Amino acid sequence: MKRVAVLGLGLIGGSLLRRLGERGIGYDRTPATRTAAARDGYAVAHTVVDALREADTVVLAVPLPALPGLLDQIARHADAGTLLTDVTSVKSPVLALVRERAPALAYVGGHPMAGTEASGWDAGNADLFAGAAWVACLEPDTDLAAWVRLARGVTGWGCRVVPCAAAAHDQAVARISHLPHLLAAALAAGAVDGPGGQLALALAAGSFRDGTRVAATRPELTAAMCAGNAAALGAELDALVAALAEVRPLLADPDKLAGWLAPGHDARQRRMAQLKAGPVPELLRGSLTDPEPLRRALLALGGAGGHVASVITQGDRVTLACVR
Amino acid sequence: MKRVAVLGLGLIGGSLLRRLGERGIGYDRTPATRTAAARDGYAVAHTVVDALREADTVVLAVPLPALPGLLDQIARHADAGTLLTDVTSVKSPVLALVRERAPALAYVGGHPMAGTEASGWDAGNADLFAGAAWVACLEPDTDLAAWVRLARGVTGWGCRVVPCAAAAHDQAVARISHLPHLLAAALAAGAVDGPGGQLALALAAGSFRDGTRVAATRPELTAAMCAGNAAALGAELDALVAALAEVRPLLADPDKLAGWLAPGHDARQRRMAQLKAGPVPELLRGSLTDPEPLRRALLALGGAGGHVASVITQGDRVTLACVR
Repeated sequence: MKRVAVLGLGLIGGSLLRRLGERGIGYDRTPATRTAAARDGYAVAHTVVDALREADTVVLAVPLPALPGLLDQIARHADAGTLLTDVTSVKSPVLALVRERAPALAYVGGHPMAGTEASGWDAGNADLFAGAAWVACLEPDTDLAAWVRLARGVTGWGCRVVPCAAAAHDQAVARISHLPHLLAAALAAGAVDGPGGQLALALAAGSFRDGTRVAATRPELTAAMCAGNAAALGAELDALVAALAEVRPLLADPDKLAGWLAPGHDARQRRMAQLKAGPVPELLRGSLTDPEPLRRALLALGGAGGHVASVITQGDRVTLACVR
Repeated sequence: MKRVAVLGLGLIGGSLLRRLGERGIGYDRTPATRTAAARDGYAVAHTVVDALREADTVVLAVPLPALPGLLDQIARHADAGTLLTDVTSVKSPVLALVRERAPALAYVGGHPMAGTEASGWDAGNADLFAGAAWVACLEPDTDLAAWVRLARGVTGWGCRVVPCAAAAHDQAVARISHLPHLLAAALAAGAVDGPGGQLALALAAGSFRDGTRVAATRPELTAAMCAGNAAALGAELDALVAALAEVRPLLADPDKLAGWLAPGHDARQRRMAQLKAGPVPELLRGSLTDPEPLRRALLALGGAGGHVASVITQGDRVTLACVR
């Protein structure tokens, strides 16, 4: 990546532009946001076409509903050979849109697993992605050279790259992000509902504060994110409601209740132990002229919870330092 | 309070004994815990009776199932005039047990709204309660002089005292503590369940980490806490499941979904704004010889989300600095 155009300068795009520094050029459709970014010392284009002119990489950092129009402009104006990626929190709908509207460009879907409940340019910071997982989608027809370019860029931003298919990503984030957002909203609303609400809030401590933190996200942002992943989220919500139906008759029985609680406790402890134990490194080698073995190895790595930590390319040879 | 006996030296009791310093004497039925507390420089009794001998205040800091036996010992050996309180996370069952087994003692139910997912003596620290809400239960038959004694002690430990009836407390904590614990366990277990579990954990970021934090609590502790409050928790769980059933058909509709999310967002924001705006102080004055007006005023304060910040007594006159 020589120059990266970041289209959309909200929390994620704005943080990425800060991280890129001189190698980035930003654009946002809101003039006040462009002014704020320029005031803070970043390169800002006044049109999408201006932003595309110098860039070899384009990052779509706008909400899902804004993508179709933006993709039409990019399809008309971007150079062939431009690497197109995005940071949208659902991947299958974006993949479908790109296939429909900008099929000639090399597209690799992306999703940085970082964020806060804040939004907008002023909420961004250059360190938002430090150490975060960054999904880089790998489909049967993804150009592996483009994937490697994105992975090299993302590891350079201090992130670990998780390879997976768009559909697998969407199921995973339904579980670990979108469902928690629904539950946070339901918990927060339920707490204040009816008599006893003021007392309940006065008593709220750690478990409530943590369990409702993401309810502070603007409802339209959460709604756009969830609605874009409605099918996967619906399945996960059904599974959760089934689990709650299971525990309902056990509430008064400490032993049975402890048995129901144990798998969640174990999952959380296993995850913490994994994080503490540290990485198990391995090298993956492959060739861009024979991409299938590397594609399979990368998808297996992501499916096992692993990630790519750094990328070295020499001509068509690729060496990836991986961790699982 | 001249000398406070803390019976049970887990996370809460151990933290309280540290906070009390020389004014506390601890007891735990596990010899290794007694040894650890004594090694750390605290006064430790080797029997319940020894602990009671010097104390004018007794704090029960054992799990609910251990209470009946302990109450029998206290009823036999405690002086008349001893203030009995507890730190159990449900209040109606403890109130019923005390009425049954130690009816002669002045009992005021208590619950510090602080804790971590850790447990045991070593997890405690003197600052655990700093700034926390501490419920002091007020029933129609609670001795108001005893309530004021507890409130004075608790404010001296750096806590705000929330007056409410045991039943109101139990409903509130079902909402803001016990239900979040169930949801955390369901979320954590669901995330790793079936294919895609490893990938999901690898992508887990803030919303998952926060939404599942309390799933790290030992399942037996969570189960004992929830089972002790099964009726109130069941009602809150039913309300939550009903809210989730409401949102299920809206998932693909961003506008309707945003509408469903808004009350949770508003509740969370209102709470944050309240905390930022700072306290609205007021003085409550009353007399222990005519306790009913003060009892009513205190219950109204707690029901409105307020608390007592400090307590001054002069003979039968009581002045409480309150905040709502």
